[in-house]
Amino acid sequence: MMNTPLTIAPMLERAEAYFPKKEVVSRTLDTTHRLTYKDIGKRTRALASALEQLGVQRGERVGTFAWNHHRHLEAYFGIPGMGAVVHMINIRLPEEHLVHVINHAEDRVLLIDEDLLPLIERVKDKLTSVHSYVVMTDKDELPETSLEPLYSYESLIRDGDEAHEFLKDIDENEPAAMCYTSATTGLPKGVTYTHRGIRLHTFSIGLADSAAASENDVSMPVVPMFHVNAWGMPFAATWFGSKLVLPGPNVTPKLLVELIQNENVTITAGVPTIWLGVLQVLEQESYDMSSLRAVLCGGSAAPKGMIEKFEKEYNIPFIHAYGMTETTPLVTLARLKSYQQDLPQDDQLDIRSKQGMAVPGIDIKAINENGDIQWDGEDMGELLIRGPWIADEYHNDERSAEAFQDGWLHTGDVVTIDEEGSINIVDRTKDLIKSGGEWISSVELENAIMAHDAVQEAAVVAVADPKWQERPVACVVVRDADKASMSKDDVIDYLRPQFAKWWLPDDVIFMDEIPKTSVGKFLKRALREKVKQ
Amino acid sequence: MMNTPLTIAPMLERAEAYFPKKEVVSRTLDTTHRLTYKDIGKRTRALASALEQLGVQRGERVGTFAWNHHRHLEAYFGIPGMGAVVHMINIRLPEEHLVHVINHAEDRVLLIDEDLLPLIERVKDKLTSVHSYVVMTDKDELPETSLEPLYSYESLIRDGDEAHEFLKDIDENEPAAMCYTSATTGLPKGVTYTHRGIRLHTFSIGLADSAAASENDVSMPVVPMFHVNAWGMPFAATWFGSKLVLPGPNVTPKLLVELIQNENVTITAGVPTIWLGVLQVLEQESYDMSSLRAVLCGGSAAPKGMIEKFEKEYNIPFIHAYGMTETTPLVTLARLKSYQQDLPQDDQLDIRSKQGMAVPGIDIKAINENGDIQWDGEDMGELLIRGPWIADEYHNDERSAEAFQDGWLHTGDVVTIDEEGSINIVDRTKDLIKSGGEWISSVELENAIMAHDAVQEAAVVAVADPKWQERPVACVVVRDADKASMSKDDVIDYLRPQFAKWWLPDDVIFMDEIPKTSVGKFLKRALREKVKQ
Ligand SMILES: Nc1ncnc2c1ncn2[C@@H]1O[C@H](COP(=O)(O)OP(=O)(O)OP(=O)(O)O)[C@@H](O)[C@H]1O
Ligand SMILES: Nc1ncnc2c1ncn2[C@@H]1O[C@H](COP(=O)(O)OP(=O)(O)OP(=O)(O)O)[C@@H](O)[C@H]1O
Ligand SMILES: [Mg+2]
Ligand SMILES: [Mg+2]
Repeated sequence: MMNTPLTIAPMLERAEAYFPKKEVVSRTLDTTHRLTYKDIGKRTRALASALEQLGVQRGERVGTFAWNHHRHLEAYFGIPGMGAVVHMINIRLPEEHLVHVINHAEDRVLLIDEDLLPLIERVKDKLTSVHSYVVMTDKDELPETSLEPLYSYESLIRDGDEAHEFLKDIDENEPAAMCYTSATTGLPKGVTYTHRGIRLHTFSIGLADSAAASENDVSMPVVPMFHVNAWGMPFAATWFGSKLVLPGPNVTPKLLVELIQNENVTITAGVPTIWLGVLQVLEQESYDMSSLRAVLCGGSAAPKGMIEKFEKEYNIPFIHAYGMTETTPLVTLARLKSYQQDLPQDDQLDIRSKQGMAVPGIDIKAINENGDIQWDGEDMGELLIRGPWIADEYHNDERSAEAFQDGWLHTGDVVTIDEEGSINIVDRTKDLIKSGGEWISSVELENAIMAHDAVQEAAVVAVADPKWQERPVACVVVRDADKASMSKDDVIDYLRPQFAKWWLPDDVIFMDEIPKTSVGKFLKRALREKVKQ
Repeated sequence: MMNTPLTIAPMLERAEAYFPKKEVVSRTLDTTHRLTYKDIGKRTRALASALEQLGVQRGERVGTFAWNHHRHLEAYFGIPGMGAVVHMINIRLPEEHLVHVINHAEDRVLLIDEDLLPLIERVKDKLTSVHSYVVMTDKDELPETSLEPLYSYESLIRDGDEAHEFLKDIDENEPAAMCYTSATTGLPKGVTYTHRGIRLHTFSIGLADSAAASENDVSMPVVPMFHVNAWGMPFAATWFGSKLVLPGPNVTPKLLVELIQNENVTITAGVPTIWLGVLQVLEQESYDMSSLRAVLCGGSAAPKGMIEKFEKEYNIPFIHAYGMTETTPLVTLARLKSYQQDLPQDDQLDIRSKQGMAVPGIDIKAINENGDIQWDGEDMGELLIRGPWIADEYHNDERSAEAFQDGWLHTGDVVTIDEEGSINIVDRTKDLIKSGGEWISSVELENAIMAHDAVQEAAVVAVADPKWQERPVACVVVRDADKASMSKDDVIDYLRPQFAKWWLPDDVIFMDEIPKTSVGKFLKRALREKVKQ
């Protein structure tokens, strides 16, 4: 067979050839742009030629620091298209991490949204590799800034060659993109995506049994393009020719439902917090959500109650998915098998609230001290993942040795796997509580506590115990209205009927807020420190 | 990213892990078997171990000479799974071609259906590479045969190791399967499929915008497993966990509609002749076809009238596709784009009667003496194809040099491409009629003649002409009832309003039958000889 490499540029070339009229709707600070894939193609080619002019070399990293909009899309294709690596930088990183990832990736050029310039200005003196800054703005004049040399994205595009050819001799195993992990467990770790990895991942997103991304779709990635390829949606939308809606800066739940209604969005994706916000809006005002065929949700566990509300009350189909920065990210996805479709609604919901089955192309297993776990929905073990869009190392990082062993990614996520092959994430290895030689899932306790009406949020962490090694302690944020009336015993009594006695937390600590990461996950490292005091 | 090779065995391993209970319904000479993917997995592993015992070496060819049934499915996975190459041999080949392909492929072992033994017995003395024969039968005793040494498939399976591991270190570019072309234009040409090619092709079949193969499907490949991987359906059904229905030997249209009705088939595939036969059955008797979501049709042009009948009268969705032995085979597929879905029914049908757009992963273009043709639906040129599941050579064949040039497969098919990127096959380069420097499409004339109620079939070929270089002559088979009344002028008069004058055939020859290839395509080489006389 021909050794046609699986690279990124041909996905855009397909959109140019077959879907030149299809639309990319892009909201920026100042306005909403309506471009076509034909426009995007020309602009992306111009960007690629401009980066060459700026002296970017093959394999070098070009950072993006931006919201979801058409310029970010052009960077997704233009940077790998000219042989460089698009490093999407999380705009919510604390300063220390921001400096770390830019220097560690050795970014040469940074493409920065106008409203985000201050965040980079603040750290610019600590950046060791950047030689040029590019500001992405609709305005004609360059903004006031201390960054230099500074170029305007639009004038680069204007002066670039809109017929520029993408690099033809790229090997599919060359790096195309880069992203750092969310730093829930420590300093962010760098992951490099190859052309091949992204192309194969995009195939998997288009599978009927996966997200079924299609030309018929109107695709709106809410998940940020500054993290894990926006779950691959921009690549899929372009390759398959879907209309793409990029919601831009300062996204609110209200903006999202308006975009869904007005642009007839059929598929969207984001973390649970986003959808909780959307639910609140829908409870207050009515919108036409009937165009939606799928809401993809991952990044943290999607609460069953939320899925149920979306589907039963608003008739919006929900798909729970699981992935990591290390996995491009799609690994598993919860869908009913054909013979599960006649089960009672509630059993169906139970299946669909899990993280689901590995998509075609990905192998999983889970191990504990006894070896491979049973697929019985009870046995717990650390999830291991293998496949062509799974990282095999961290970028220059000695933590690689621990995470990548014997050809498997050791995820640090603890799961059960049921008879049908569906995984359920019960904890992170680092957060799991080891009490008297047995494991207690902090996540299960948290979910149970959060189901209490008076509880706003709750996290459970381990404290050292001389007898049992570790014991669970619950940290609980009570809703304002109930703050006065809620006691520690109320929490424990609420849990008692649901758990074995030795699972019950030894203590309950009420607090005003649970510390969180830049993407809103519980920061249990910090919480454990807090609890110790 | 991990360099996980894209090989074939993991597709079956996925079915074993996630879909062990799903069914493979297999009709053989004697009975209908109902196995599960768990059974198929064990039996395939046993087959792989048995082939090792028989001395089959890595990279060697093992031929199959069989109908569509579970044993053939096991060969599809078991042979590549142990590192050898499954050579599917067309059971309808004339003797001379049969000997040629077996010797040319250097098959070492042949797996033969019991009822097909006589075809091999007849040529056995001319076979130069085969060292063992295996008969596939349900019966316990070995049949009487002159083939030796002869093994029984079922006893090999019984003695094999059902826990045998598939070869782990296969490179994705190693050969996995092999098939010869249909010999419409000359001696059959050998095509080798790599593991990678087949895996990527299977991805493309699962895409929502392609055949959307899914676990929800009940998949029935009517297209023979002895030609071009049965269009990849057995691989897709297994990987995605669809129930699979294999219709076995001596398939009749009536059998097919019964299987569709009784097994709730959702997707099936075959050449136009099959579906014309099915239409006849449906006209006579009523069956419940409501489970069908897609009938894939390719191999020859699907007549528009047939597609219309299926959809309008029987509410059965039809998908016209195009491919070749050289292309694994899926290349294009006719689907409406989102903005075409509001067009008048008849315009939609026009779009869907074409061969359609290249599926994601495949590049096409067409060239004539002026270079690349315009995508205007008018300009004609030879179709060129490129992609990771397209062959880059014929097996030991000097015709490779002509067909594979500058990284493109030169198909020998002449097409137009319209503004939307949809191709329409107007002829084969070898069958195109070059009259006075202009091209006349034999296929368009044939379709027009066949639309006449009194015509059963018609083929148009070129005859040499001193003035115009070539001129068209129509060969027409008239239905029995109309034989007496139909004249040459009737045919020409019928065509006159539809074509420019210089397109009209110079002569009409009535005959009893159009010569055909083993798969039912018009054998125009033979026809041209006949017309000369
Ligand atoms: N559907 C889900 N349900 C539960 N947890 C999920 C889900 N999807 C993702 N996760 C969690 O998110 C993790 C991946 O997140 P990400 O790669 O963004 O960084 P992180 O693991 O939070 O940070 P770090 O690796 O730097 O500590 C997974 O390992 C898992 O713990
Ligand atoms: N949907 C279709 N419409 C029209 N023609 C088709 C279609 N699908 C396939 N074909 C024809 O079938 C050919 C592929 O057939 P196949 O590979 O089985 O052998 P062949 O080309 O008929 O024989 P050979 O190459 O040996 O002469 C294509 O090149 C094309 O001419
Ligand atoms: Mg992590
Ligand atoms: Mg051919």
